[in-house]
Amino acid sequence: MTMTGAEALIQVTRESTLTDEVVASFGGSEDPRFREVMSSLVRHLHGFIRDVRLTQVEWDAAIGFLTRAGQTTDEHRQEFILLSDVLGASMMTVAVNAPARSTATESTVFGPFFVENAPFIENGDDIGDGMSGHPCYVHGSVRSATGAALAGVRLEVWAADDDGFYDVQHESRQLSGRAHFFTNEDGTFDYWTVQPAAYPIPHDGPVGDLLDAARRSPMRPAHIHFMVSHPGYETLITHIFVEGDEWLEKDAVFGVKPSLIVPFVEHEPGAGPPGRNLAEKWTSAQFDITLAPIAEPQRAV
Amino acid sequence: MTMTGAEALIQVTRESTLTDEVVASFGGSEDPRFREVMSSLVRHLHGFIRDVRLTQVEWDAAIGFLTRAGQTTDEHRQEFILLSDVLGASMMTVAVNAPARSTATESTVFGPFFVENAPFIENGDDIGDGMSGHPCYVHGSVRSATGAALAGVRLEVWAADDDGFYDVQHESRQLSGRAHFFTNEDGTFDYWTVQPAAYPIPHDGPVGDLLDAARRSPMRPAHIHFMVSHPGYETLITHIFVEGDEWLEKDAVFGVKPSLIVPFVEHEPGAGPPGRNLAEKWTSAQFDITLAPIAEPQRAV
Repeated sequence: MTMTGAEALIQVTRESTLTDEVVASFGGSEDPRFREVMSSLVRHLHGFIRDVRLTQVEWDAAIGFLTRAGQTTDEHRQEFILLSDVLGASMMTVAVNAPARSTATESTVFGPFFVENAPFIENGDDIGDGMSGHPCYVHGSVRSATGAALAGVRLEVWAADDDGFYDVQHESRQLSGRAHFFTNEDGTFDYWTVQPAAYPIPHDGPVGDLLDAARRSPMRPAHIHFMVSHPGYETLITHIFVEGDEWLEKDAVFGVKPSLIVPFVEHEPGAGPPGRNLAEKWTSAQFDITLAPIAEPQRAV
Repeated sequence: MTMTGAEALIQVTRESTLTDEVVASFGGSEDPRFREVMSSLVRHLHGFIRDVRLTQVEWDAAIGFLTRAGQTTDEHRQEFILLSDVLGASMMTVAVNAPARSTATESTVFGPFFVENAPFIENGDDIGDGMSGHPCYVHGSVRSATGAALAGVRLEVWAADDDGFYDVQHESRQLSGRAHFFTNEDGTFDYWTVQPAAYPIPHDGPVGDLLDAARRSPMRPAHIHFMVSHPGYETLITHIFVEGDEWLEKDAVFGVKPSLIVPFVEHEPGAGPPGRNLAEKWTSAQFDITLAPIAEPQRAV
């Protein structure tokens, strides 16, 4: 039995009236930004339900999915960040907050493995102690858009070992592979760690089931996280990716940008910087960073 | 510092490219409905983030909100259903699944307090035993769109007591105020319960905080839930609301429809149906239901 024209009109009116009513219910807040965000959220959420004619069974599945995500989340596991990541919502948030600057280094996802107050190190120090993997020397510089070297810029770095695990995922939870340090007077920095490896995001929960349903891989290409902050400049949250990694084209969280792929050059055992002697093979990677000046809030045209 | 035109173009392209890439990542599923739902979900989610230029702080707040909702949810509390309810998503799902029929009884939200396999009763039985509140006699009929009485129709009813709590919210968790039964040969039904009261949805969690931020009340007007099912007809999930309730205009979950508001008539102590003698004041409410025939899946025009 199909709808009559009159019934279809009643239906459309019922649906749009409901959306308007819910939007209006958030109009009592004194905070214009809260009203703006909630109004858009309600219109898009309702638009989704209307566009796909969501069934009650699908609504039940959505509630069940969120419930399981909640049960999976604890102090060491953040299923909601993973969900945001695999839906590209994290990367879209990065995109709208890192306005395009033709000269500035690009941003990418923050991820769930950052730790506040990672240890302070001096340039040249080794943070790969006790980690699995070949030694890896990371060096580079931080400059302004005009090419001026920036001294005293704070860098935070974090990365997985070559088994694909972050320190906080290991039983011991002892911090390793992460640190903060500052650029030298000439804007340069360097430190030793271990060669990062591709790894799967945690996929034994509902987000893993979602990836399975989409026939998507949970793998992320090998990378090192950077957060770079300096007064007067936009804080840069990004990675460098290992050139040649087989997962660069299908990162589970959509974080790869071509400009962030760098060669990790292989070296034979022997002398390495800074005056170090390596008993095993090692790699080196260079990352030259350009920071964008603080921007006014932007709206894409 | 504002964007140049070239930078704005880069920005727009980055954002739309990302959305297309995420939509494409769900294209590997063999299930066309899954692809349709995920594609729309991603486009609306990204559209929301782009439209409001969501900040990193707001994204953090969203992740924190969902995390707390997960922590608040357990076998007796469903914060994600409450969230769906107060955002009107539950009611919109009801709306798209109950195509408008000029003659059929309207639907409303299911709510989180339904229990499978509620006790079977005969017509005329009392399910208000041990509940707080004046006795309330509920009676009515179930008919087809052509006015034919429908015999043997299954009804499920559930309601809060006059303290505003459902049975499952009490410590004892003993079932009361809920039952299932079937219409008589002439399509009629009747049972006794207690007069329902307005009550707040649980609001000591993140959904309560959201309502506070919006200066919204958590109250729902007094109502009785009905689920009415019969072969060949659309299952009807609805309420009757108590005429005159002060919260009818501002139901926290947007469930009120004028056609579902009925008078709960007050009676003095004395004789009541069916041959019962009441020692206290009592009320009665009539609900005549019309079921819609099973419909083809509908799209609003």
